[in-house]
Amino acid sequence: MGHILVTGFEPFGGERLNPAAEIAMSHDGAAIRPRGGLPSRAAVKVRACVLPVTWAGAVKTLIAEVGRTPGLGAVVMLGQAGGYPAFGLERVAINAANGRDNSGQELVEAPVLAGGPPAYFSTLPLQAILASLESEGLPAFISNSAGTYLCNFAFYALMHHLATAWPSPAPPAAGFIHVPYLPEQAIGKKPIPPSLARGEMERAVRVALEVVAGAR
Amino acid sequence: MGHILVTGFEPFGGERLNPAAEIAMSHDGAAIRPRGGLPSRAAVKVRACVLPVTWAGAVKTLIAEVGRTPGLGAVVMLGQAGGYPAFGLERVAINAANGRDNSGQELVEAPVLAGGPPAYFSTLPLQAILASLESEGLPAFISNSAGTYLCNFAFYALMHHLATAWPSPAPPAAGFIHVPYLPEQAIGKKPIPPSLARGEMERAVRVALEVVAGAR
Amino acid sequence: MGHILVTGFEPFGGERLNPAAEIAMSHDGAAIRPRGGLPSRAAVKVRACVLPVTWAGAVKTLIAEVGRTPGLGAVVMLGQAGGYPAFGLERVAINAANGRDNSGQELVEAPVLAGGPPAYFSTLPLQAILASLESEGLPAFISNSAGTYLCNFAFYALMHHLATAWPSPAPPAAGFIHVPYLPEQAIGKKPIPPSLARGEMERAVRVALEVVAGAR
Amino acid sequence: MGHILVTGFEPFGGERLNPAAEIAMSHDGAAIRPRGGLPSRAAVKVRACVLPVTWAGAVKTLIAEVGRTPGLGAVVMLGQAGGYPAFGLERVAINAANGRDNSGQELVEAPVLAGGPPAYFSTLPLQAILASLESEGLPAFISNSAGTYLCNFAFYALMHHLATAWPSPAPPAAGFIHVPYLPEQAIGKKPIPPSLARGEMERAVRVALEVVAGAR
Repeated sequence: MGHILVTGFEPFGGERLNPAAEIAMSHDGAAIRPRGGLPSRAAVKVRACVLPVTWAGAVKTLIAEVGRTPGLGAVVMLGQAGGYPAFGLERVAINAANGRDNSGQELVEAPVLAGGPPAYFSTLPLQAILASLESEGLPAFISNSAGTYLCNFAFYALMHHLATAWPSPAPPAAGFIHVPYLPEQAIGKKPIPPSLARGEMERAVRVALEVVAGAR
Repeated sequence: MGHILVTGFEPFGGERLNPAAEIAMSHDGAAIRPRGGLPSRAAVKVRACVLPVTWAGAVKTLIAEVGRTPGLGAVVMLGQAGGYPAFGLERVAINAANGRDNSGQELVEAPVLAGGPPAYFSTLPLQAILASLESEGLPAFISNSAGTYLCNFAFYALMHHLATAWPSPAPPAAGFIHVPYLPEQAIGKKPIPPSLARGEMERAVRVALEVVAGAR
Repeated sequence: MGHILVTGFEPFGGERLNPAAEIAMSHDGAAIRPRGGLPSRAAVKVRACVLPVTWAGAVKTLIAEVGRTPGLGAVVMLGQAGGYPAFGLERVAINAANGRDNSGQELVEAPVLAGGPPAYFSTLPLQAILASLESEGLPAFISNSAGTYLCNFAFYALMHHLATAWPSPAPPAAGFIHVPYLPEQAIGKKPIPPSLARGEMERAVRVALEVVAGAR
Repeated sequence: MGHILVTGFEPFGGERLNPAAEIAMSHDGAAIRPRGGLPSRAAVKVRACVLPVTWAGAVKTLIAEVGRTPGLGAVVMLGQAGGYPAFGLERVAINAANGRDNSGQELVEAPVLAGGPPAYFSTLPLQAILASLESEGLPAFISNSAGTYLCNFAFYALMHHLATAWPSPAPPAAGFIHVPYLPEQAIGKKPIPPSLARGEMERAVRVALEVVAGAR
């Protein structure tokens, strides 16, 4: 595995920052030591990028980054899930879209891809990531819904792209992890939502990348 | 102000640790620089202790520590509030007690003190603490109920002691701050409760102590 | 006991109705058969009214109605608690007020009554009401905080009035019960809050009044 | 459309009743007047049944009932979703199963059907049902996850059966609606979960069936 592509999103919904973007970029260029493999296994490099919060733009940027990453071994998308109390390892992306993006374009009960299958499953090793996070004292869960906003949209588009447009052999593993608000984002909201600190987020994503790097 | 007494509690309810105890003890012996006062103001020393989770024992230890602390300027009690998404600055202690302590003794709709007044208000500068926490990016709120378990019990007992048994002049300021679970405590619970990292907790309590130290 | 006074409030917070007002008025003039007493005990009459949602007006109307009710045996205040999943039997009213009333007047960390005691306890038989509600299949709980908005404000003012301005002998029992949203109020809110149907609310308040009527 | 098949489940998880079973059976034999169609349209008959809470048994019974219903026009499955504050119109069934059934058999991250597609979408008119429920004052939402317990399992199995084993022409519309706890089920749980009364549940399912009947 040469590279893991890690993506975040621009801020949206009136937020001044997006923890997913910050945590993704904090790992840009990092060398990830595979977890659970032989000590001699080579480290894997991270390439990180931030996706725009527009229906068309997010997918366009994402697919371009996928094509541009040399030796792509895995894609780990990160997104902000306001209200989550822990790291949400998303199991499934569904072919449905709702909401208004940062450009003002609104989708209402639209498909991500007309005629596409109802859903794609994450191909990341979710159970192994969950076990490693918990062993490091970091709360996480397998989430059965990534919603129908842009996170799910880009997640579905990525999985469809890898399933249908990837040259043989097998496409890279790919999936989506939702992170809670940062503590500073919880201020002023009523009721106060759960949040987790930046250090815990960085550590959790590092652990997830180590498991992903070790899984191949 | 010579000393601030900071208290936590032993673990209870099947937990292996109590963040309140750990955060309290992490400040034991610390010199707190008053916030908002003149730069020349002297630092205040912290004396920390951990209270047992028994109805009688908690109050006995607490009152003894209050009497034993030289130049007592303030008492800041800390307790674990599983499920809180942020730091809860408790406004009021009420004369009611429910629950089973670590020795197995259960109280059901009992008074903390038969014949005592219904409630005591915290005398800490709650609004100033709240504002300082938020300015540091730490989510907090004024809570209108500390429950009826041991946290409220000891909080009420302390306020009653200071109001009725303290030699003139005015008693030290005193109050209670509830902290959420630590992330490691959230693991295995269903549904996963909110939590905040140790670093954020230590920082929050430090900020609160600085405001308390500066308020006098 | 000649009469039980039951109060609700006008709608507030953008709502088109207030379940507390509707449920209160639905019992106006009702004859309540005391629960748990001798079969021969006389029924008690209900007198219901709706209080305005203004800081001054609510208390003025409430105290006037108290004075105007012949043979006042008890006062049961009802209020809407958006987000409550069950009937909240309020234990305590505290001397603190926050929020903007329907006239636009805002209180921020104000006392209900300057110089008043921190709190008053409900004098309704809360445990007996709770047991009767549950035996009828109606979920309820003893709540340790009525908040600091108008419900708590009027509740505190009532308890203070009865404690300080009531001619001997003992003042009537009094207290506050919070009810959830009605199902129709839950529509359009995000996230969707709990609600309970009108029939369940009417039944719950009837049960509470029967217990109150039987307690004296 | 000759018949709508409405299914519920036996109690599980320590409950003494299952509202889905009770509400399903309350409509057994009912004649449903199609909503939104011509006044002259014929009523549709309901056939209701209760499924066992076992992985194998639920699907076996369900498929048998589907085959046994004359002139099957639609299948509306009902299930209990403890903690839901409103009626959950399930959008999607996924190929994943977890949990222990009433016979003690546990599935852990198992597929519903090895080799089956990741998901099937409900083919009920969810938006029309949602709009009609809200117009009747009944809170509901489109849910993006039916979980991975038996509700999702049977829902997936049904959709797969209709998609793959149904003789042409098009299979009947089918889908799943989750209902909250009944008020009596909320008693004794901590924290108290949301609930809705039996009357509201019966009314909501009636409305949903009218929309389904009118959609064809």
